[in-house]
Amino acid sequence: MKGDRWMSEVTERKALFIAFEGGEGAGKTTQAQLLQERLRGLGREVLLTREPGGTDVGERLREIILRPSKMSSGPSAAPPQSELTAAAELFLFLAARAQLVSAVIRPALADGTVVVCDRFSGSTIAYQGYGRGLDLEAVRRACELAAGGLRPDLSVLLDLPVETGLARKSEGGEWDAIGQESREFHMRVRRGFHELAAAEPQRWLVVDATLSVADVARIVWERVQSSWNQATS
Amino acid sequence: MKGDRWMSEVTERKALFIAFEGGEGAGKTTQAQLLQERLRGLGREVLLTREPGGTDVGERLREIILRPSKMSSGPSAAPPQSELTAAAELFLFLAARAQLVSAVIRPALADGTVVVCDRFSGSTIAYQGYGRGLDLEAVRRACELAAGGLRPDLSVLLDLPVETGLARKSEGGEWDAIGQESREFHMRVRRGFHELAAAEPQRWLVVDATLSVADVARIVWERVQSSWNQATS
Repeated sequence: MKGDRWMSEVTERKALFIAFEGGEGAGKTTQAQLLQERLRGLGREVLLTREPGGTDVGERLREIILRPSKMSSGPSAAPPQSELTAAAELFLFLAARAQLVSAVIRPALADGTVVVCDRFSGSTIAYQGYGRGLDLEAVRRACELAAGGLRPDLSVLLDLPVETGLARKSEGGEWDAIGQESREFHMRVRRGFHELAAAEPQRWLVVDATLSVADVARIVWERVQSSWNQATS
Repeated sequence: MKGDRWMSEVTERKALFIAFEGGEGAGKTTQAQLLQERLRGLGREVLLTREPGGTDVGERLREIILRPSKMSSGPSAAPPQSELTAAAELFLFLAARAQLVSAVIRPALADGTVVVCDRFSGSTIAYQGYGRGLDLEAVRRACELAAGGLRPDLSVLLDLPVETGLARKSEGGEWDAIGQESREFHMRVRRGFHELAAAEPQRWLVVDATLSVADVARIVWERVQSSWNQATS
């Protein structure tokens, strides 16, 4: 009975915006994909996005974030700057997000598509605010500006002890620069996520990411169902 | 006597940071260059910067701001997005500024160089805040974050009626997109500059930019001298 009512809502409700947040190696990408598959299995349109990127501008910014010191090809090539400042990094992520929200996420939600983001404002506040130590209130307000007031209906924090996450990520990859930050940095990031989740429990789900992939997926799915019932969109 | 004392200060003082602000066609570039020449004539090192650009990252962002819809060359080229959102534009300017302040302006000031900027935070607040209507307090705080707390010792507002400025700029150029904004947009920008200057008269000089180039340069030069006496750096 309850299942029937919910099944009706999952197919009729116009949209839901879900973000996966958390530190390195917590399984965000895996869980986002599992959620996408489950929703598609119910006949829902789902858009899975990953920041930065997803728009032409975002892809070009992603390239700058990953390789800030690549020489420009113009005739007035400036001297290379080997490192992005913390503030420049913040603003590049936010520029990509502003473009993604406006050009991709909002149109999808308006179209009744479920949007699942692999990282959103929570990660920016945790990494650039708590982690890098930029002024927290300024980072928050800049995030609001970038999202144009759009907030996830549900943010899922896949929570993992710092050592566990770093060990899982030890293989490296293109985002390795952030992965190589100090253990203290990652501790601050984790504390940031905890504070965000604690401040708005109705919008956040904290899941122990040391659980099995299947268990995490089940817990997420249960909360997605109840988020649907609360979603205003 | 007073001139001697000042001449001593202009050569001994460690640094001064001056920004030229104002609408289109007000003569910022011309006046910045005249000031640079005058200071160099007195034996001072001068750095003249123009935003965005001046760093490798800034040059690449400049390219994105000017041509946001250029296709990326990567294998996973995303669909082109023809227009930057107002927030994305803001963050791209701020990312370029954060990099410029950290990699170029601060080292120059620390080295005793006079830095003259063709636009700085004032233009961002006036154009993106007042002009585009983004949340003003969020824009202010983001500007502070980008500049890392660095503020010009003197901001010179070259003030011009909107019609006069647009007529002067009618030739167009690569920044034509902003020049083609509505008259109402430029009225809001001008009001923004006026409010910034009125709020901090000790940091701002408002000059009637309909005066001759020589008269404007003379007024600016007089104020630069007194700013030197007040500069704390």
